[in-house]
Amino acid sequence: MNKLYVVGIGPGNRENMTFSAVNALKDSDIIIGYNTYIDLIKDLIGGKQVVSNGMRKEVDRCKEAIELASKGNTVSVVSSGDAGVYGMAGLILEIISKEYSMSDFDVQIIPGVTAGNSSAAILGAPLMHDYVTISLSDWLTKWETIENRIHCAGKGDFIVVLYNPKSKSRTEYINKTQEILLQYKSPDTPVGIVRSAFREDQSVQISTLGELSNCDVDMFSTVIIGNSKTYINGKYIITPRGYSI
Amino acid sequence: MNKLYVVGIGPGNRENMTFSAVNALKDSDIIIGYNTYIDLIKDLIGGKQVVSNGMRKEVDRCKEAIELASKGNTVSVVSSGDAGVYGMAGLILEIISKEYSMSDFDVQIIPGVTAGNSSAAILGAPLMHDYVTISLSDWLTKWETIENRIHCAGKGDFIVVLYNPKSKSRTEYINKTQEILLQYKSPDTPVGIVRSAFREDQSVQISTLGELSNCDVDMFSTVIIGNSKTYINGKYIITPRGYSI
Repeated sequence: MNKLYVVGIGPGNRENMTFSAVNALKDSDIIIGYNTYIDLIKDLIGGKQVVSNGMRKEVDRCKEAIELASKGNTVSVVSSGDAGVYGMAGLILEIISKEYSMSDFDVQIIPGVTAGNSSAAILGAPLMHDYVTISLSDWLTKWETIENRIHCAGKGDFIVVLYNPKSKSRTEYINKTQEILLQYKSPDTPVGIVRSAFREDQSVQISTLGELSNCDVDMFSTVIIGNSKTYINGKYIITPRGYSI
Repeated sequence: MNKLYVVGIGPGNRENMTFSAVNALKDSDIIIGYNTYIDLIKDLIGGKQVVSNGMRKEVDRCKEAIELASKGNTVSVVSSGDAGVYGMAGLILEIISKEYSMSDFDVQIIPGVTAGNSSAAILGAPLMHDYVTISLSDWLTKWETIENRIHCAGKGDFIVVLYNPKSKSRTEYINKTQEILLQYKSPDTPVGIVRSAFREDQSVQISTLGELSNCDVDMFSTVIIGNSKTYINGKYIITPRGYSI
């Protein structure tokens, strides 16, 4: 059986990887991933064959992984965070569904700590209640769909986790998101922005929805916006679960 | 400085814990948690003082943890999944905010693999696009709030992850959720139900939204309901991210 691991490596430091993720890498002949992620785990893959390439090469990367696995190699495809959240798990299964027979492969998805959960841990406890996760990238999703989801998130008083909040070519969506959410949420709603969570260059900003457009946000940032009960205490953002204390 | 870890232990098996979680437990004098979770990690805590108690004792448990830490003990409070998602991270910070001085404590939140992410990995790749996480427990949240959020999740064509879908005293909310989502989603929408993910008694059901009321769901289950593009292939549920393949 052709063995293919799709491995969520968590935020990027060894400490926040799972034992399963490390074991999958150790068990593999070939490791495949985006350059940046391969760099994060390079101490774990010494001596193994590595296939890495740049952004937006996801389809090529997954096709190559499946092809190499079909030749009898044990292959790991790595994603940062959780491989099942905007990661490579879906694409691997989509390609096998379309071009191969699913029964020829033993695909194991290894879950990991998401960027949202890592960022939340650094910020305190903002995700203690119902939340939505939305990517602001319009590369694979129409902006109208994203915009509708932001409205729904606002109407539902959800905590909001934003992935891909900004890139060099998409600078305005974060401001549009702020405008939409201000229709439903107070400008005082706490906002936390974590860049490069648990990596050497980690940085944290604690602000409010009203001030979000004045914050530094880039493609390495995760943005968490509270619900109507979220508050800030010192360096922490806290969303009450509802207990009487 | 009084040291307090709030540790997400992931789904419950050692392999899906992070190194940070294991290190925090090893570094602690006292481990505190709900009986079921303490049982899951008992091989890691031999020889340490353990304080465990039953469901709905969360406030007592956290107050005791903080009190023990304030006396100079290093204490770990454990939650299953991620401590920051319906876990103990918020309550610990809330109680310290209210009754102590935050600056007297070194609180470290250790993120973990959530029940949603574990279940998704077992089901294939259902969470590959924007999703909401909703708890159906009305113990701490009014049903009207939950109901509104389910409507918003439906209107936004989000993938939906349901925590606490059913208990002995709350048997109807999962059926109400089905009814509401059927106003927005097709009855053919794939549904995956994972019980006790990655534990010895793990079980998996793959079904559809139209059939959800006929599925076995209990308090140990996580339910994932797809978006309009989600499909089933064999034993996998796949939500396309939008790549052309």
